[in-house]
Amino acid sequence: MAILITGVAGFVGVNLAKTLLESGNRVYGMDNLSRGTNINMKPLLDSSQFEFVHLDITDADALLNTCQRLEKIESISEVWHLAANSDIPAGIEDSGVDLKDTFMTTYHLLNVLKKLGVRKLAFASSSAIYGDHGSEPLTEDLGPFLPISNYGAMKLASEAAISAAVESFLHQAWIFRFPNVIGIPATHGVILDFINKLKDTPEKLTVLGDGSQQKGYLHVNELIEAMLWIQQRAQEKIAIYNIGADDTGVTVKFIAQETVRTVKPNAQIEYGQGNKGWIGDVPRFIYSIEKLKKLGWQPKLSSKQAIQKAIEQIVEQEHSGGH
Amino acid sequence: MAILITGVAGFVGVNLAKTLLESGNRVYGMDNLSRGTNINMKPLLDSSQFEFVHLDITDADALLNTCQRLEKIESISEVWHLAANSDIPAGIEDSGVDLKDTFMTTYHLLNVLKKLGVRKLAFASSSAIYGDHGSEPLTEDLGPFLPISNYGAMKLASEAAISAAVESFLHQAWIFRFPNVIGIPATHGVILDFINKLKDTPEKLTVLGDGSQQKGYLHVNELIEAMLWIQQRAQEKIAIYNIGADDTGVTVKFIAQETVRTVKPNAQIEYGQGNKGWIGDVPRFIYSIEKLKKLGWQPKLSSKQAIQKAIEQIVEQEHSGGH
Repeated sequence: MAILITGVAGFVGVNLAKTLLESGNRVYGMDNLSRGTNINMKPLLDSSQFEFVHLDITDADALLNTCQRLEKIESISEVWHLAANSDIPAGIEDSGVDLKDTFMTTYHLLNVLKKLGVRKLAFASSSAIYGDHGSEPLTEDLGPFLPISNYGAMKLASEAAISAAVESFLHQAWIFRFPNVIGIPATHGVILDFINKLKDTPEKLTVLGDGSQQKGYLHVNELIEAMLWIQQRAQEKIAIYNIGADDTGVTVKFIAQETVRTVKPNAQIEYGQGNKGWIGDVPRFIYSIEKLKKLGWQPKLSSKQAIQKAIEQIVEQEHSGGH
Repeated sequence: MAILITGVAGFVGVNLAKTLLESGNRVYGMDNLSRGTNINMKPLLDSSQFEFVHLDITDADALLNTCQRLEKIESISEVWHLAANSDIPAGIEDSGVDLKDTFMTTYHLLNVLKKLGVRKLAFASSSAIYGDHGSEPLTEDLGPFLPISNYGAMKLASEAAISAAVESFLHQAWIFRFPNVIGIPATHGVILDFINKLKDTPEKLTVLGDGSQQKGYLHVNELIEAMLWIQQRAQEKIAIYNIGADDTGVTVKFIAQETVRTVKPNAQIEYGQGNKGWIGDVPRFIYSIEKLKKLGWQPKLSSKQAIQKAIEQIVEQEHSGGH
C-alpha cells in the first residue's frame, strides 16, 4: 500500500516524505510547485519508492485521473494533506488565494477520496484557526474559533469539511494543528527573512513591529515525529491534536539577536512600532500541548534551542546555494 | 439607508423583510428562487420600500453590478445574509450543494461588501456547526466544532470567513446560530412533510426513525424578534449568539401525534428504526441560550407551543393553496 502526500515539495512535505520513505513505504507526492522549484525534492527523487506528480489538486479531473493511474501501481492506503497557501498576508490581501489553495484543495481531495474509497486522511491544520484568545492557553476544544486571517479561516473550513466527511465516508482522520515550524529546507519564515535582509544590508536588520511578539517554535524534525506518533496511537475517529513547543516561546527580538549573532555580529537591529506584525498575525498566544503529552509525546528541544538549530541549518543552506 | 437581505424569498427572509419594512426601512432583497417561486414574497412586493432582485449571489459580477446599481438609489448600511442551501441530505449526497449555496454565497458577498465599503453584516449560522456533543449543553464557545453535515461544515466555514473579514474590513458582525425554526410560510421541514404525507396516505403517517429524536423548536416570529434584539444591543465586534427554545424540546413522536390530531385524527402512526433520521442529523442536543437570556431576551413560547402554533398555521397555509 502507498501513501499519498499533497504539498510534498513544501518544507514539511519534503521532511515527511523522507521519513516515510526511510520507513520502507511507497510514497506518491503531489505539488503544484507554486512556490519555487522542485529542488527541495532532490533527495526524494532518487528513491525508486517515490513517485512525484506535478499537479494542482484543485484541478479536480486531473486529480482523479492521476489517482486512478497511481492506484494501478499500488493502492493508496492513506493521504497526508499538506497542500495549502503559505503566504498569509497575500491571503488577506486577496481572499481568493486561501479559498483556492487552503480550502478548495481540501474540498476536491475529499471528493476524490470518496470516489476512490480511500478512508484515512491526515491533515495539517494550524494554530491560526483559534484567533486571538489573549492569555488563555489554546487547548484543542477552546471555542469560539474566530480566525483573524483568511488562512486560518480556510484551515478551519477544511477541518469542518473533513469532520463532515468522517460522518459520511472517512473511517479515520487525524487533524494536526501546527505551530510555527522551523528548520530546513527553509522556503519562507522569519529566520530566512532576517538572513536575506542581512544579505541586502549587512550593517542593519530592520524588524517589523517592536520585537515583543512572542511565539513558540517547533523544529520540523520534531513535528514529523509528533505527527507519526499521533497517527500510530490516537484512537479517536477524528483525532485533533495541537503540536507545538512545550514553553511560552521566544520573542522576535530573540530571533533577531540570534540571527545577527550567527550571521553578522556587528549589525544593528532596528525595531518598528506595535506588537502586531501584519493584519492576521496573532501577536502572542499560549499553545497547549497537554493532550499530546498525555499521549506520551513531547518535544526535546525548547523554542530557543529549536530557533538556534534552525538558524545554523538555514545559514548553511543559504551558503550552499539556497534551498 | 437601505438594508440588504440575501435569501429573502426563503422562510426566514420573508418574515425578516416584513418586519424591517414595517419599521420603516428600505429593504433590498435578493434570492435565486432555487426553491419554489416568489409567491412567498407577495406581501413584500406590494411595498414601495421593497426592491427585489432575482439573482444568484455566487455570480460575483452580477452581485457587484446589482449592488452598485442599488447603491445609486440608496446606500446599503447593512446586510442580513440568509441565503443558503436548506436541503441538508442533498448536501451530504453532493458536497457541491453546500459548497456553492451555503459557503460561496458568503465568500462572494464578503468580497462585494469589501469593495462597496459596507461594514455591517448579520449572518444566519446554525446549531449544525457544533456536531454531536451528546448531553453537553451547546454554549457558543463549546469546542471542538465537528459538524457532521456539509451544511454544518459550510456554515462554520462562513463564520470563519466572516471572522477574518472583521479583522480586515468589517466593523461589526452578528452571527446568529439558528435552532430548528418553524412557522409560515413553510417551505420545508418536519411539519410540512407530515402534512404532505397525510395528504398522500390519509390513513397512516410513516415516521423516519423511532420518533425519539428530541429537539427544541422556535417560532419564526420569535426568531426575528431575537435577531433584532441582539443586533440592537450586542456590543461585541463579532457578536455570536445561539437563538433557540428555552427548554429541552419535543420529540418527533410529539410532532407526529400533534399533526395527526390536527389533520387526520384517525390516522395510524408507524415508526422506523433508530434515533438518527439521516446521516448528518444530530439526534438530540441541548441548546444553551443563557448568553441571549443575559442580554435580556427569551422566547415566550415553549417548543410544544411553538409546534402547535406552527401546525395550525401550516395547515391553514396548505388549505389556502400552498405557500
